Amino acid sequence: MEGFSNIKNKLLAEQVQEQIYHYILELSMRPGDKLPNEFELGEKFGVGRSTIREAVKLLASRGVLEVRQGSGTYVVSTTPSDLDPLGLSGVEDKIALALDLVNVRLILEPGIAEMAALNATEESIRQLRYHCDQVEEKIKAGDLYIRDDIAFHTSVARCSGNMVVEQLIPIIDTAVLMFVNVTHQKLTKETIMTHRAIVDAIAAHDPIGAKTAMMMHMTYNRNMILKLMKEEKEQR
Amino acid sequence: MEGFSNIKNKLLAEQVQEQIYHYILELSMRPGDKLPNEFELGEKFGVGRSTIREAVKLLASRGVLEVRQGSGTYVVSTTPSDLDPLGLSGVEDKIALALDLVNVRLILEPGIAEMAALNATEESIRQLRYHCDQVEEKIKAGDLYIRDDIAFHTSVARCSGNMVVEQLIPIIDTAVLMFVNVTHQKLTKETIMTHRAIVDAIAAHDPIGAKTAMMMHMTYNRNMILKLMKEEKEQR
Repeated sequence: MEGFSNIKNKLLAEQVQEQIYHYILELSMRPGDKLPNEFELGEKFGVGRSTIREAVKLLASRGVLEVRQGSGTYVVSTTPSDLDPLGLSGVEDKIALALDLVNVRLILEPGIAEMAALNATEESIRQLRYHCDQVEEKIKAGDLYIRDDIAFHTSVARCSGNMVVEQLIPIIDTAVLMFVNVTHQKLTKETIMTHRAIVDAIAAHDPIGAKTAMMMHMTYNRNMILKLMKEEKEQR
Repeated sequence: MEGFSNIKNKLLAEQVQEQIYHYILELSMRPGDKLPNEFELGEKFGVGRSTIREAVKLLASRGVLEVRQGSGTYVVSTTPSDLDPLGLSGVEDKIALALDLVNVRLILEPGIAEMAALNATEESIRQLRYHCDQVEEKIKAGDLYIRDDIAFHTSVARCSGNMVVEQLIPIIDTAVLMFVNVTHQKLTKETIMTHRAIVDAIAAHDPIGAKTAMMMHMTYNRNMILKLMKEEKEQR
């Protein structure tokens, strides 16, 4: 029975890993910030210290946390290495990076949405709707919706039926994730509206509608980044 | 002195590796095709059998060749694994893949060329001109120009000054390489003309000119792919 309980512990640690990661994002923690100790984290997530230790190990192996003996556990990066195929998490100026990212997404994603409207199957549209609903529900409940947002943009890419776009998905996912500390949880009304417009256009097989809705979605993000850049400049 | 001669042998084997790879591409060899034996290859490239053996080993480690004991050396893939970050070399229908690729390049590269015209520095324009000239010279001499073509598109991406585009370079490089067996050495006149138009527009900091020149370049490629698809259908 020991084998089975081991598997159970591993699954639990993986769940707790997710929770700790979301906690880091929610508090907008940055590299160098210290995590509460094992006992406090255990209390917070309702699990024992051994599970916390296992979860921290998992996040350390993904480059998110670092355990410094005798000192505590620290955030090293807010982007897990397995979600950073472009190796961008090391870039210092996150807002400048966000602008470069949104400029590339503005080139890429409207074209992908256009292809999606041309080629989406009933099954891929159903998936797209599901993730759109999930984002909307989480926003309304005040929950973190990053994973659902990533799944939404992944679904659009899947709808395109293009095998090269399929391979670009990890890059699109990173791009969504990179916005977390910059524009996320800010454009909630606009996100609901434009996501829905994208889904409706793809479902109606309306390529121009899908392309322009995606452009609008990206433009809201871009304007927010420009605003944040301006504010940062004024603060200096 | 043995150390030095080892280094020399390694450098020679790397050069010969390149020559064997180009030989495979020039003859449009396909997975499963058998290479001439070590003796013949040695004669062909003017080196000893041990150098050939070393070069074959290098290409085997990159997933291009396979040595079957007692049978000979065979082509496994025409795309080295280190040049295939998207893992597309396994796709069977190369022409369908080429169409999917050109559709994505049509989305991505005109936008990158536009950014390049906005942000290119004198130094990056100089580099771009160099690779453009190289492609032109090799075409005129009847030589294989894949590496220079890759370097040209890489240079355009570099001119953009966008750090995310920089990270997309391996993908653009693969895309160029993937066209080898499909459209390369076919659109030489059009390639010279459109490459030059792209360089001139970037050097003149003319974003619309750069974008449309790149679109034209991709459209020639796309039309060629469609033509090949039609021919293949008719042959069935």
